[in-house]
Amino acid sequence: MNWKLLVIPAAASALFGLVGLTILARADSTPTADTEGSPVFGVTLPPGYRNWQFVSIAHEEGDKPDIRVILGNDIAMKAYRDGTVPFPEGTIIARLAYKYEPSAQNNAVFGRDQSFVAGEPTNVQIEIKDAKLYASTGGWGYGQFENGKPNPSEKIVNSCFACHTKLPPATDLIFTKYSQ
Amino acid sequence: MNWKLLVIPAAASALFGLVGLTILARADSTPTADTEGSPVFGVTLPPGYRNWQFVSIAHEEGDKPDIRVILGNDIAMKAYRDGTVPFPEGTIIARLAYKYEPSAQNNAVFGRDQSFVAGEPTNVQIEIKDAKLYASTGGWGYGQFENGKPNPSEKIVNSCFACHTKLPPATDLIFTKYSQ
Repeated sequence: MNWKLLVIPAAASALFGLVGLTILARADSTPTADTEGSPVFGVTLPPGYRNWQFVSIAHEEGDKPDIRVILGNDIAMKAYRDGTVPFPEGTIIARLAYKYEPSAQNNAVFGRDQSFVAGEPTNVQIEIKDAKLYASTGGWGYGQFENGKPNPSEKIVNSCFACHTKLPPATDLIFTKYSQ
Repeated sequence: MNWKLLVIPAAASALFGLVGLTILARADSTPTADTEGSPVFGVTLPPGYRNWQFVSIAHEEGDKPDIRVILGNDIAMKAYRDGTVPFPEGTIIARLAYKYEPSAQNNAVFGRDQSFVAGEPTNVQIEIKDAKLYASTGGWGYGQFENGKPNPSEKIVNSCFACHTKLPPATDLIFTKYSQ
């Protein structure tokens, strides 16, 4: 056997691997990405989060009613679909909230007031699983972003864990369940 | 140089390549996909629609309140982001609706009744742009699916266009606007 015959496939495979990784990295980039981090946690807005897959949706009433979608990176989606709890290292969950608004257009079509849609974006919240880095907050780091920039309030970002930690331990401090 | 040292990386790289391709192929398949078509239009449930990108969200009140997400295939997402109207051939928009339910878990954490989440799936509606095939319905074909199967009711599927055609022409008969 000629060892040169083995060098070529090895080199080609390595090259293919690099090309594959480059494509994956590009597919995961978003122009709104920002390198600034949140207070306390240093969490940044992950590149490409707007293109992530859909986990579920919710509507919150209260002083500032919103309608929100929850998206997950590939690690999050696999964990949700496999039912893996606690979520694995590298899980990132993005919560995109919008003003909750009646739709004049839709209500005119339906002939009655029944339709509520997403208005302007309010903020994006990110949580990242890193069991060592965020050991004191259940393994999760938090950040809130407006217009692509981290909200600088320590009070706001500290309120994330203060709220999530009230969830039952079986949730791994995650509010959202996966919608089929 | 020992040639055995090259066999292992070559074999490992080839195996990695196969595993990678298998993962990619699986990512685009959906267990609920079905080859049966809707009445009137013959629209089928597109493979992988559950993994498509997020367009927007809405809540519909009325007799059967639901909360719904709208996802789009790559052609739809590009058109939405570029502001292309009418939508190009091959656009597919998927509307996934869920029962609208208060969340006992979230309300317990928040200390008040404010949170509504997605319950069980109700149905998935699909619309596909094919200007020739669906010339008599504004270029759009429609289908409604429950548990991955097309709803066999002609009345239901005909009601899609009857409703969408009431929208202003500038919408290209699409209710949903893109959420940033």
